[in-house]
Amino acid sequence: MNTVIQQGLLFCNILLQVNLAENTEMVNVVTERKAEESHRQDSANLLIFITLLTLTILTIWLFKHRRFRFLHETGLAMIYGLFVGIILRFGVHLPQDLSDVTLTCAVNSSPTTILVNVSGRFYEYSLKGEVQDSKGHDVPNAEMLRKVTFDPEVFFNILLPPIIFHAGYSLKRRHFFRNLGSILSYAFVGTLTTCFVTGLVMYGCVVFMKVIGQLGGDFFFTDCLFFGAIVSATDPVTVLAIFNELKVDVDLYALMFGESVLNDAVAIVLSSSIVAYQPEGDNRHTFDGSALLKSLGVFLGFFSGSFAMGAATGVMTALVTKFTKLRDFPLLETALFFLMSWSTFLLAEACGFTGVVAVLFCGITQAHYTYNNLSAESKSRTKQLFELLNFLAENFIFSYMGLTFFSFQHHVFNPLFIIGAFLAIFLGRAANIYPLSFLLNLGRKNKIASNFQHVMMFSGLRGAMTFALSIRDTATYARQMMFSTTLLIVFFTVLVCGGGTTPVLSLIVGVDTDQDNSVTAPDGMTQRSTKHESAWPFRLWYTFDHNYLKPFLTHSGPPLTSTLPACCGPIARCLTSTQAYEDAGQLNDEDTELILNDGGGLMYSDMTVSTDAHGMPTTSTSQAGLYLLAGTSDDPLDRELVFGGTRLVLPTDEPPDPLTSFPPPPPSPPLSDPLRHRV
Amino acid sequence: MNTVIQQGLLFCNILLQVNLAENTEMVNVVTERKAEESHRQDSANLLIFITLLTLTILTIWLFKHRRFRFLHETGLAMIYGLFVGIILRFGVHLPQDLSDVTLTCAVNSSPTTILVNVSGRFYEYSLKGEVQDSKGHDVPNAEMLRKVTFDPEVFFNILLPPIIFHAGYSLKRRHFFRNLGSILSYAFVGTLTTCFVTGLVMYGCVVFMKVIGQLGGDFFFTDCLFFGAIVSATDPVTVLAIFNELKVDVDLYALMFGESVLNDAVAIVLSSSIVAYQPEGDNRHTFDGSALLKSLGVFLGFFSGSFAMGAATGVMTALVTKFTKLRDFPLLETALFFLMSWSTFLLAEACGFTGVVAVLFCGITQAHYTYNNLSAESKSRTKQLFELLNFLAENFIFSYMGLTFFSFQHHVFNPLFIIGAFLAIFLGRAANIYPLSFLLNLGRKNKIASNFQHVMMFSGLRGAMTFALSIRDTATYARQMMFSTTLLIVFFTVLVCGGGTTPVLSLIVGVDTDQDNSVTAPDGMTQRSTKHESAWPFRLWYTFDHNYLKPFLTHSGPPLTSTLPACCGPIARCLTSTQAYEDAGQLNDEDTELILNDGGGLMYSDMTVSTDAHGMPTTSTSQAGLYLLAGTSDDPLDRELVFGGTRLVLPTDEPPDPLTSFPPPPPSPPLSDPLRHRV
Repeated sequence: MNTVIQQGLLFCNILLQVNLAENTEMVNVVTERKAEESHRQDSANLLIFITLLTLTILTIWLFKHRRFRFLHETGLAMIYGLFVGIILRFGVHLPQDLSDVTLTCAVNSSPTTILVNVSGRFYEYSLKGEVQDSKGHDVPNAEMLRKVTFDPEVFFNILLPPIIFHAGYSLKRRHFFRNLGSILSYAFVGTLTTCFVTGLVMYGCVVFMKVIGQLGGDFFFTDCLFFGAIVSATDPVTVLAIFNELKVDVDLYALMFGESVLNDAVAIVLSSSIVAYQPEGDNRHTFDGSALLKSLGVFLGFFSGSFAMGAATGVMTALVTKFTKLRDFPLLETALFFLMSWSTFLLAEACGFTGVVAVLFCGITQAHYTYNNLSAESKSRTKQLFELLNFLAENFIFSYMGLTFFSFQHHVFNPLFIIGAFLAIFLGRAANIYPLSFLLNLGRKNKIASNFQHVMMFSGLRGAMTFALSIRDTATYARQMMFSTTLLIVFFTVLVCGGGTTPVLSLIVGVDTDQDNSVTAPDGMTQRSTKHESAWPFRLWYTFDHNYLKPFLTHSGPPLTSTLPACCGPIARCLTSTQAYEDAGQLNDEDTELILNDGGGLMYSDMTVSTDAHGMPTTSTSQAGLYLLAGTSDDPLDRELVFGGTRLVLPTDEPPDPLTSFPPPPPSPPLSDPLRHRV
Repeated sequence: MNTVIQQGLLFCNILLQVNLAENTEMVNVVTERKAEESHRQDSANLLIFITLLTLTILTIWLFKHRRFRFLHETGLAMIYGLFVGIILRFGVHLPQDLSDVTLTCAVNSSPTTILVNVSGRFYEYSLKGEVQDSKGHDVPNAEMLRKVTFDPEVFFNILLPPIIFHAGYSLKRRHFFRNLGSILSYAFVGTLTTCFVTGLVMYGCVVFMKVIGQLGGDFFFTDCLFFGAIVSATDPVTVLAIFNELKVDVDLYALMFGESVLNDAVAIVLSSSIVAYQPEGDNRHTFDGSALLKSLGVFLGFFSGSFAMGAATGVMTALVTKFTKLRDFPLLETALFFLMSWSTFLLAEACGFTGVVAVLFCGITQAHYTYNNLSAESKSRTKQLFELLNFLAENFIFSYMGLTFFSFQHHVFNPLFIIGAFLAIFLGRAANIYPLSFLLNLGRKNKIASNFQHVMMFSGLRGAMTFALSIRDTATYARQMMFSTTLLIVFFTVLVCGGGTTPVLSLIVGVDTDQDNSVTAPDGMTQRSTKHESAWPFRLWYTFDHNYLKPFLTHSGPPLTSTLPACCGPIARCLTSTQAYEDAGQLNDEDTELILNDGGGLMYSDMTVSTDAHGMPTTSTSQAGLYLLAGTSDDPLDRELVFGGTRLVLPTDEPPDPLTSFPPPPPSPPLSDPLRHRV
């Protein structure tokens, strides 16, 4: 034991004020019994949540069965959580655990590991986190409520990754990439705007509160900005489930989904950057140029680093699945896919980047490349697996949210702050959507109609990400007030906006559940392509992706031998799969992409409705539809996008076929069949 | 904070021997940075394992691709783990973490939670476990090796449950139930015999070691028995993967699988009972009648309690899936199935029973009842989900096993003990198989052939369960020696026996991969039924199960209106699903059961081989095969078993049809079709 003591920087000796244990054997037995009891307690707590989820599932089924649509399942999970929270707080009275030992040790930091010498036996303790005991001792079941409280990092390390990965994996890729410009504008410029506008409004509110003496603690401008960052993350899932049922236009869907998903990534990184700004100013909390630059650097570094890692592991998975014949063993393939996707998260976290952001980009990359290499069975397996994980994680978070409303012991509800916050998020969202849409419309051929803007404005729910970001740190007065307010915002938006979206959407957009897609499309975006999206960076990216990346990473696309210059012949031959040669004429990649799209955002909504939602109940119909669209479009890039664009391809081994860009609808490949009945 | 202190039984004051931190803000930052670093380290460690698993998957694929069969994948995972262990131990040299604080506190027990007061801020620490520092400080990377060590409870609470559930869920139910008598005998009587014989041999060995002064610490008879209990758990998976490829007779397969699976359950409960015996005798470690009775009570209580809980949640899931139309939403159905199965584990643990055992029986119940109620898609989803979880968990355990061989710092390798242990497990297994087979053969019409007995003897590998049981407690000298020896036993049996099973099996049983099933069958069990299995308790159970339980819990079987007495008419009508009436003539349950069997133990071995393994590549063929079997069988019970037995059924609403017991092969129901291409 000596070495442990010596290697320790600090050596604390505890004065013993109680009688010594007589027997080491007894100590051992008592310790074991304690550990066992703690394990039992943990099991029981987890069981509460599992039961909650089970109840939620059954109620969701009942609602779906009876076609009751005013409440989304996440809202349901939340309400159940609230009930359990009430019961735990006011209903159950457990005897307090009398064996908590408080060691008072004024060392200069709390180490992550503590070795405690108990009568000659050493026990290892690991840091769980700081306990706020400044107030809240009037709460009756403090001990018990603390036990049903999860480590906030659980959300970031276990529950959020599958949700975010699923979002990335089920992005409607083609529509996503076609609206990339607008989506990126909304995600970056828009989120930053929301964050700053919300922050400024909140700062005004806080200053006012200070003046009239309503503020019970410090609340700096950076705290306001932090609040702005966390509430700027909109929840993609709640809205989109409703969109799905309402058969909203695919472009609006892609715009909303893309914005919400990237939103989350920007919000996380933004909040980290704001936190990174804080310690700099020597607690002066005044403006500091170098700190701002540092924050900006953190933002860019975190974002690009996480992006690079996500994309890298996605590309690696694509290469592995392409160059091995792993597709003969779907179990191995699925396991590999799962592990590689998970390793993205761990890799990013281990390198100090943001795992959740990396996972998002990994998901997008996997869907864009790796998915094309998977066997038909693995395609459905991976989709189903992540669908399930997403469903469980999401409902878990929402029911925990409900529970924590009562189990959290340091709520700071300030009516002024809450009113200010609701005003701020409204203004912040408005300052994001309307000016940005106006600017984007200047460059866009087909405008984002004003009723679309209202929908985007209204649909900006706050969900799991906002909650996870706000519960991460609840140490200070400011953070506690933020957390309480955030909870209320999430409850309000999910229950009221989420529940009310169906009628409001119908009212604004004029969509009707019986109407066809073609009726709604002209309302918002008359054409499938915009001048803005045809800007050269995107054009360049599409060409590069289609001609080089796709053939390199997947079995689809034109063979590399035809796209690469002649000098690279041997390498190109080596990298091109035989399948690509066979499919050189047909562009079967587009087909599988459509199928992924079809089921991607589907969740478990009524099958017939969703299949109709994009107007493509079968492959042949959808291909025919595309053909029609491409034919009526007046932009050559659009045609390229629809049919995968062989415009820049210079086939070397076969004469250019004028029909290549517009092939007649090919018969659906047999490998996509097992997926069809799932959609 | 006062209340926390007051509520604490103990109040320890730490004498501060280092300089105080100057700034609370700084403390906070340092703490955050520490937590971050610890998180990074954790991510990196987990990444090591994920990378290991990925490598294993790729190598498995390569082996399968090249048809190299001398090493099972679990062996591979283990070998990779060994390599990483060597690298971590001897290759990497990290600077030692200097911030470990040792608090010396002689309180009467180590509490589960400690609150540490660091400069006025309270941090919560949770008990991780005891640290053995009696020796091992010559190990260079002690700190790092300790960090890659998982809490042993992780195995019991996270990794073992999916493995065991999968085993239960993929039990070949009909063959399992037909051999239930023999399986129960092997599992209970056999495992107890193995445990005691091994324990006695080890005790002899230990006494001898004490005499010649080779023993470095206490080693009591209960320790020997404990060792016997943990090594009596044979691994079902390693052997059965090979069996699958070898197309072993279904009855032998069922016997082996059933024995191995129940084995594990018995071994866990047995080891708990032996531990429960220990503290009783006041450290005298002599024979104590009341303690023995108490142990026996613990054994029976744990086993029956866990069994009841597993069966209860299984039945509940069956009822929920039967009486709701949840099958319209496969995602909800799968999520419910998963959550209910998981809740079995938590419920059992929360009530103080053995979660792993409960999970096993839950799996069997789910497969027997709930599976029949699931939609076709959920059937494949649940199977695939648990297949994946099982695969990941199993390979994780085996690679951890390899790693821990070098990372564990308190190995006690004693050559005498190791030789004794190998002898003991050999004798223990022999004392289980041969006498028991002889006794069973006295009652069985068709004998268990001696070559079958050799196979069972030889295939008794030790795997994940033995490892998990032995790593659970490595506090004392005896347990450390046991753990080291157990590791060696697992390595040896998995690498040598597992790798060598293919040729040995071919040699002993005379099975050939090209031979048909019908050739091997007469070798072992000429007939499909035995007098022993027709004993009245089993006969009674089958009738009860088929006539009442199945119709009550599932959509299959004869309608309850025809099996229950007339007075229960209204209840029976209410409980019988409309589907049961429709299927009253056809026995479609048997069909789905066969499909489950077909894919159940399949894992991911070559598709064609496995489909042929039981001679039933398609439904029509399998039904024809059954028809043939039933026709040639001379035992009426057997016919009942094969066709679901409508013998005791008195149809009230339609005249008894002589063809009911032997219907012509019905066309395969469409709902089983999506499964077929997966098999």
